[in-house]
Amino acid sequence: MASDTAAPARPADLGPLATVTTRNGLDFAVRDLALAEAGRHQIRLAEHEMPGLMALRDEFGPTQPLAGARIAGSLHMTVQTAVLIETLVALGAEVRWASCNIFSTQDEAAAAVVVGPHGTVDAPEGTPVFAWKGETLTEYWWATQQIFDFGVDADGAPVGPTLILDDGGDATLLVHKGREFELAGAVPADQPGDSGEWRVILEALRASLAVDPTRWTRTAAGLIGVTEETTTGVHRLYELHRDGQLLFPAINVNDSVTKSKFDNKYGIRHSLPDGLNRATDVLIGGKTVFVCGYGDVGKGSADALRGQGARVIVSEVDPITALQAAMDGYQVARLDDVIGEIDILVTATGNEGVVTVEHLQNLKHLAIVANVGHFDNEIDMAGLESLPGAEKVEIKPQVHEWRLPTGRSILVLSEGRLMNLGNATGHPSFVMSASFTNQVLAQLELHTKTAEYPVGVYVLPKLLDEKVARLHLDALGVKLTRLSERQASYIGVSVEGPYKVDHYRY
Amino acid sequence: MASDTAAPARPADLGPLATVTTRNGLDFAVRDLALAEAGRHQIRLAEHEMPGLMALRDEFGPTQPLAGARIAGSLHMTVQTAVLIETLVALGAEVRWASCNIFSTQDEAAAAVVVGPHGTVDAPEGTPVFAWKGETLTEYWWATQQIFDFGVDADGAPVGPTLILDDGGDATLLVHKGREFELAGAVPADQPGDSGEWRVILEALRASLAVDPTRWTRTAAGLIGVTEETTTGVHRLYELHRDGQLLFPAINVNDSVTKSKFDNKYGIRHSLPDGLNRATDVLIGGKTVFVCGYGDVGKGSADALRGQGARVIVSEVDPITALQAAMDGYQVARLDDVIGEIDILVTATGNEGVVTVEHLQNLKHLAIVANVGHFDNEIDMAGLESLPGAEKVEIKPQVHEWRLPTGRSILVLSEGRLMNLGNATGHPSFVMSASFTNQVLAQLELHTKTAEYPVGVYVLPKLLDEKVARLHLDALGVKLTRLSERQASYIGVSVEGPYKVDHYRY
Amino acid sequence: MASDTAAPARPADLGPLATVTTRNGLDFAVRDLALAEAGRHQIRLAEHEMPGLMALRDEFGPTQPLAGARIAGSLHMTVQTAVLIETLVALGAEVRWASCNIFSTQDEAAAAVVVGPHGTVDAPEGTPVFAWKGETLTEYWWATQQIFDFGVDADGAPVGPTLILDDGGDATLLVHKGREFELAGAVPADQPGDSGEWRVILEALRASLAVDPTRWTRTAAGLIGVTEETTTGVHRLYELHRDGQLLFPAINVNDSVTKSKFDNKYGIRHSLPDGLNRATDVLIGGKTVFVCGYGDVGKGSADALRGQGARVIVSEVDPITALQAAMDGYQVARLDDVIGEIDILVTATGNEGVVTVEHLQNLKHLAIVANVGHFDNEIDMAGLESLPGAEKVEIKPQVHEWRLPTGRSILVLSEGRLMNLGNATGHPSFVMSASFTNQVLAQLELHTKTAEYPVGVYVLPKLLDEKVARLHLDALGVKLTRLSERQASYIGVSVEGPYKVDHYRY
Amino acid sequence: MASDTAAPARPADLGPLATVTTRNGLDFAVRDLALAEAGRHQIRLAEHEMPGLMALRDEFGPTQPLAGARIAGSLHMTVQTAVLIETLVALGAEVRWASCNIFSTQDEAAAAVVVGPHGTVDAPEGTPVFAWKGETLTEYWWATQQIFDFGVDADGAPVGPTLILDDGGDATLLVHKGREFELAGAVPADQPGDSGEWRVILEALRASLAVDPTRWTRTAAGLIGVTEETTTGVHRLYELHRDGQLLFPAINVNDSVTKSKFDNKYGIRHSLPDGLNRATDVLIGGKTVFVCGYGDVGKGSADALRGQGARVIVSEVDPITALQAAMDGYQVARLDDVIGEIDILVTATGNEGVVTVEHLQNLKHLAIVANVGHFDNEIDMAGLESLPGAEKVEIKPQVHEWRLPTGRSILVLSEGRLMNLGNATGHPSFVMSASFTNQVLAQLELHTKTAEYPVGVYVLPKLLDEKVARLHLDALGVKLTRLSERQASYIGVSVEGPYKVDHYRY
Repeated sequence: MASDTAAPARPADLGPLATVTTRNGLDFAVRDLALAEAGRHQIRLAEHEMPGLMALRDEFGPTQPLAGARIAGSLHMTVQTAVLIETLVALGAEVRWASCNIFSTQDEAAAAVVVGPHGTVDAPEGTPVFAWKGETLTEYWWATQQIFDFGVDADGAPVGPTLILDDGGDATLLVHKGREFELAGAVPADQPGDSGEWRVILEALRASLAVDPTRWTRTAAGLIGVTEETTTGVHRLYELHRDGQLLFPAINVNDSVTKSKFDNKYGIRHSLPDGLNRATDVLIGGKTVFVCGYGDVGKGSADALRGQGARVIVSEVDPITALQAAMDGYQVARLDDVIGEIDILVTATGNEGVVTVEHLQNLKHLAIVANVGHFDNEIDMAGLESLPGAEKVEIKPQVHEWRLPTGRSILVLSEGRLMNLGNATGHPSFVMSASFTNQVLAQLELHTKTAEYPVGVYVLPKLLDEKVARLHLDALGVKLTRLSERQASYIGVSVEGPYKVDHYRY
Repeated sequence: MASDTAAPARPADLGPLATVTTRNGLDFAVRDLALAEAGRHQIRLAEHEMPGLMALRDEFGPTQPLAGARIAGSLHMTVQTAVLIETLVALGAEVRWASCNIFSTQDEAAAAVVVGPHGTVDAPEGTPVFAWKGETLTEYWWATQQIFDFGVDADGAPVGPTLILDDGGDATLLVHKGREFELAGAVPADQPGDSGEWRVILEALRASLAVDPTRWTRTAAGLIGVTEETTTGVHRLYELHRDGQLLFPAINVNDSVTKSKFDNKYGIRHSLPDGLNRATDVLIGGKTVFVCGYGDVGKGSADALRGQGARVIVSEVDPITALQAAMDGYQVARLDDVIGEIDILVTATGNEGVVTVEHLQNLKHLAIVANVGHFDNEIDMAGLESLPGAEKVEIKPQVHEWRLPTGRSILVLSEGRLMNLGNATGHPSFVMSASFTNQVLAQLELHTKTAEYPVGVYVLPKLLDEKVARLHLDALGVKLTRLSERQASYIGVSVEGPYKVDHYRY
Repeated sequence: MASDTAAPARPADLGPLATVTTRNGLDFAVRDLALAEAGRHQIRLAEHEMPGLMALRDEFGPTQPLAGARIAGSLHMTVQTAVLIETLVALGAEVRWASCNIFSTQDEAAAAVVVGPHGTVDAPEGTPVFAWKGETLTEYWWATQQIFDFGVDADGAPVGPTLILDDGGDATLLVHKGREFELAGAVPADQPGDSGEWRVILEALRASLAVDPTRWTRTAAGLIGVTEETTTGVHRLYELHRDGQLLFPAINVNDSVTKSKFDNKYGIRHSLPDGLNRATDVLIGGKTVFVCGYGDVGKGSADALRGQGARVIVSEVDPITALQAAMDGYQVARLDDVIGEIDILVTATGNEGVVTVEHLQNLKHLAIVANVGHFDNEIDMAGLESLPGAEKVEIKPQVHEWRLPTGRSILVLSEGRLMNLGNATGHPSFVMSASFTNQVLAQLELHTKTAEYPVGVYVLPKLLDEKVARLHLDALGVKLTRLSERQASYIGVSVEGPYKVDHYRY
Repeated sequence: MASDTAAPARPADLGPLATVTTRNGLDFAVRDLALAEAGRHQIRLAEHEMPGLMALRDEFGPTQPLAGARIAGSLHMTVQTAVLIETLVALGAEVRWASCNIFSTQDEAAAAVVVGPHGTVDAPEGTPVFAWKGETLTEYWWATQQIFDFGVDADGAPVGPTLILDDGGDATLLVHKGREFELAGAVPADQPGDSGEWRVILEALRASLAVDPTRWTRTAAGLIGVTEETTTGVHRLYELHRDGQLLFPAINVNDSVTKSKFDNKYGIRHSLPDGLNRATDVLIGGKTVFVCGYGDVGKGSADALRGQGARVIVSEVDPITALQAAMDGYQVARLDDVIGEIDILVTATGNEGVVTVEHLQNLKHLAIVANVGHFDNEIDMAGLESLPGAEKVEIKPQVHEWRLPTGRSILVLSEGRLMNLGNATGHPSFVMSASFTNQVLAQLELHTKTAEYPVGVYVLPKLLDEKVARLHLDALGVKLTRLSERQASYIGVSVEGPYKVDHYRY
């Protein structure tokens, strides 16, 4: 679809801000290439905070091990992702990118990736990106489709990706569903109860089927694998594989230790207080904070808030993590029992309906409600929106006072969505460096050791997980001790690692 | 001077943004009254976080103990100050206000104070404010003069303030110097070596002397005292008093426990990481941070950064506070000895030349330099600016990359000035509530117990200090235990306090 | 072998303190039954701190699910173990016990178990115990053999245990080796290089083979399984199973979350500073402490010492745990690089030769050396003992000053062995309650669901792990939140748990 | 009285353990000189932890500035005090010592001081000490009298001390009361309501008056001052001075920053968990702990327990310290409101009746009750002892289970007295080094600058306080930064200090 002779077919309802351009042989759809300079500044600073990715450029740049790889990427188009993309390119890959969330694109980062480190706004030389902040769902799924089109080969045959780099599984879903419907010869009709987004997907696939009835079957056949970033996407992959429907091997990047134990715990420790501060400027010290959930995100949340002088109360459903919370010195209580004492209410469960409308009504006046768990249904926002007599007043973007029938108000951040993204800037570069270094290593595994990965879902070998950590030590001034041969033998490991049994919990 | 029939005399070089308006009987100079609505939202939220001030309104509103007081206020015109001003008014005072810093005004707060809680943009009913963000020095000293003009009495005689509420001592300086020059009959000529600001002050007083040669003498005579907010201002007051030149009694609000031990320690614990995050988004966890100085500000800084998972190293010149730092678990080192290990360098000393240009050049690439101490000379910014080969690149406002001749860069926040103000929003409302409740109580002391305060510099009685704390407990859910008569007698105090000897260190 | 008509055969060289008695139908070998009253006091207090075990008595006491089980226990004969033993008995088991370490018996606990909760010194009614503090190796292996003799059946045939409860694997080893040699018809001769202990074992088995050449074969046949407490024992079991030599199923209690993540981290957090204090009374605050290893034990150690105001430096060989240490705010360095700054040196690696004689000689004068890792070879004690010119001065038991040829001294705790056991009292009861509740549940699994456990090595089902945690929550005042059916379904778990995937890292 | 030709008059009821000996020209009364070797070991280790005292020996030993001083010391006769005594001697003083508490003597330390660093048991060459663990009150006041007898001069006239080093004020009291009664010519008769101890004092002074009616008048005349260690003693001194009765100048060592802010906070942080562990071996982690009082002792207590993973709740009567507790992240509650949740109850108030018998009865079963405040009346032990139906069971010395009529028990440590002394070993040497270095400097001030100290109560000049801190930095590896002349001038201090205004709160 993308070529340098014809503009891509652009859906009629693409938003006015989206620029769909073919320039200098590069097709892309970003807000404004003029933002590239600002983006380049930020990328440069982020590179300094992403030593893992930069180390991979140093190690693998000369040998171009990703030469021949065509990577379709679907992951938040942020400054950090720009460093990831440019690392993949530096290792030889051809890359196309979309965001995996309609709001998460940083337009200056998208622009800078398109322009590239050596290009100009007039002569962009970077990587095709199809992403802008504030896409509609139709635009989103249009953009996602663009990452699968790597032009045509010498014979004019369409070329697709060899690898997907996915976050949440949307790109993978598109291939699986597209192929399924092509084999069935038809896209099913909308059903009552289908979500709005599912209808958009079906509509997109109907259009695709009409234009090119073998597109996704062809694409699937060309794929040698996917690397997946998140819990949600990984969950989908395990289900697909369990049901015998997975079409290509998948590497579960999420469960690398250097992803899940770093991103979740240390990322949120940084970004939760950051979001609270930017949203409200309310002193955290001395306040009573309730954290729902004591998984890795809850642990990081509680630690951060205690570090700011809050009294932290935790709730848990799992007795093991509840016991950990108690042993870490936190009061463990039920939300109902202490609802009237809470100044700041944080959800970190990944479950739904954790905070009910009744809870919201029983909070103190101007209590702050913040979700760092997963979806906005963690707090019953739908219930709040339909509560008779409740009034929503915007204090500033992403900060709303809800005046309740009780006469009290509450402050809801980011409309109940992830406030570390909505009110702050998400995970810092250093944390994302660990995650993305895993991604690059996973892409390298699939591309260079294809035969070792039959269809299935894998985690990276512990040795690579350790390598990711290793690449981040120098930047922190960490001096690693080296085992002697004798010591390594004594504990039954190699001097070079891996150092732990697989079920080690860290 | 202020009336609704004639505009105040406005210096020719007042900035284009300053609005000097006489409307609805109110003269004022703020950026734009239309900002008042946004300001009112913020004031309302701040009121919730300033329980001490709101409690004083409840306690004293009915009896109007500040009736007859005319207060000239010179203090950062922020949202929190708006709550202070409206508290003074609620207690019966007539108030006029200027900011004590050319950059610190929040224009929406200034507008909201002018409009008042019950006024409208078209019919403002609030308090005269003369302040906007980004004043010139000339404008600043013009504005400061405006707070001394409370119109004319029934006989047409000019009316001045009875009290000053000062922050840094500029308003107090103006009265003392103005009177001194009036008594001398002339303002001295500029001297070589005079600072630019001093020249502006002299020029302003020359103009004043020409127009009204007894203005400051009259003003001084009418003043029953000043309450001073900061270390710097307090220092000036003690010097004036030592030299026999202090003209009226002064209350040193700065050294109330609920000011100095809260503002400095808990305020910075909040706003230092906040400023670092907003400025750079760099992960604090795992980084090596160096904090110069372990006074209250240094203690709060170190605590905050450790709470975010940094390794903190502290420097001190005072062996007692150095020993405290060691006992609190910090490495105590000299900056020179560890300069090459530092990721984030924080100055919290209140001294000058703590970080030299040589230090700056020996920092790691892209190390962050942040001042939370006092003036920008804590870091040798002047030296940096004149360093041959150094280049300053603005990453975003208040965040500059300095490219050094060494080939390395550093990130300097807020141009070396207080970064918790420049990159974040300064102290949170709750902290300011404690400080400002002290201010109101100090104003009450001077106004209602004038005879008890001959000329001198005083701290508030401990009982009032304790009262300030007491007014902030409910908001935090603190339940205070009450001494029995027998217990009070056993430790030799009253049941109602004060509970400690004067030299108690908290 | 044990009966009330004939005293057990007692080796000629049994220590003079050991009482081998048959009284009131009970055979046993403990120091002095008169210690029982003191032991009973301590057991009663320990029961309060071991809510998991007490809850199992409440839940299972009425139904006696361990009726018919004969348990041979080999685990430190402490007060906490007494509560474990009496719990097994309360659930219906017949039990015989030895310690798994020659020094770890608390004689008053051993006596109290023999006397039993309802017996008297003259008429003991408890459980046969063969353990006293300070056994020789010969005595130790004699005692270990006693736990396999459950008398004779109605037909006069010898009766053995149905289950082993092991700590370190010595009881399991005895059965496997005994059977192996019986099948071979001979015990091999000692080899040069055999350890002293191995020679003692061979000698014991030679004697056994001479008296009863099918004893261990018979015993093995009667066993339905073993539950193993520690890493070392578990390691042996996995090797046996890998090599096809494991004779009966084994449950790996060590790797229950409520064992390894609690015992190691929270146990040492308590007992490391406790041991330092009892040994030296040296202020920990302000000191520079070096912790070798940042596994669970290292994490707990570092946390405890920081909590006492020490500056903590950590070393690691594993880049992942090294990165964790850095993210937790610790300096991560090599021992060699900072050896001259260290006041307290703690080893927590489980490896050998971590601290060399050269390290010891470079420490500060009177630096403290403490091992909480594993064996005493973690510090090169052998090297120290043979260092020319080094002199050992006993300050008090388990605390030695080593005067070094450098002119400096160091303080070595517990002769380089586990100082939390040697200088303090090991893990507190609450921590052991979690471990031992796992043990009882594991015994219940094997006894009541024998068919579900073919030969192999298992960890307890996560649901039981969660149950262990659950039984410890009330005592800490923890209120667990309960999932709704809808929430459970949303995250794909049962309302009753288990709540996490198997590879969850906690 | 003491001479080498005649044994001192020994009261008939001196305990059987007390040895009153005159040997080698030295009179003394300690338990057993054979303990001296063990004491010498401990003194040597303590010297290493008391760098301030050792530095004073280095600095002042050569010039012997205390030559001519005769010091009567009354302070707990511990290992740390031994280092203090030998430091005073090393600086030239003649010293005699008694303990200030009937239980606090460490007999081996007392013996070692008598034997002296260079003496032997048979030929002691040290300092006269009159102290042993477990004195009766009569013995105690006899011993206190001995420290005032420095033999006779060349003319045979009795010689008294020139200085008192006091802890709690008993020695000072004896001089004041003795002189008062001598001037009155009679010791008053016992009154109903007199405490037992007061009667003992009166009896002792009656005997003294009978033998030597000018003894205390003479002694008082010879004294140039006293240095006092504690709050209690200081309180008495201020009262005496206020009432015009103080006979000689006094230096309040207690309020040196390096005493009160170190001893109270960092000392208890160490010794509270130490005492809990030695007394009970109960896991602190996960427990709910209630700390009464958030002064320096309460702050150190709360910090220590949080550092061990406890949930800490604090109570306060002072709103300022209550607010500090909240800002430090603690729940602040009234004891009554949470009494049923508490596992460990710590009193740190210095007040009486803080824990009532009703509180004790409402605690959880086997809750631990620990006093680190002051006297045992902080907890109503008298009330507990007279509670009908309450039974006291000794678990071990200083640990008692009280079985209450409610059916529950509690564990009371050290019979309600200071448990950090009773169950642990009090403050560690390093903390005492700071306190005692202040003592030595204070003695030096009075002895060498007598004229500068007219009768009154003084704190040490801040410069000396800073010196004390300075002498403890090297041992902790602290590198102090040095002000430049310009910086010192900028903040208005000398380069050498003092660095802070007098009212600085640290």
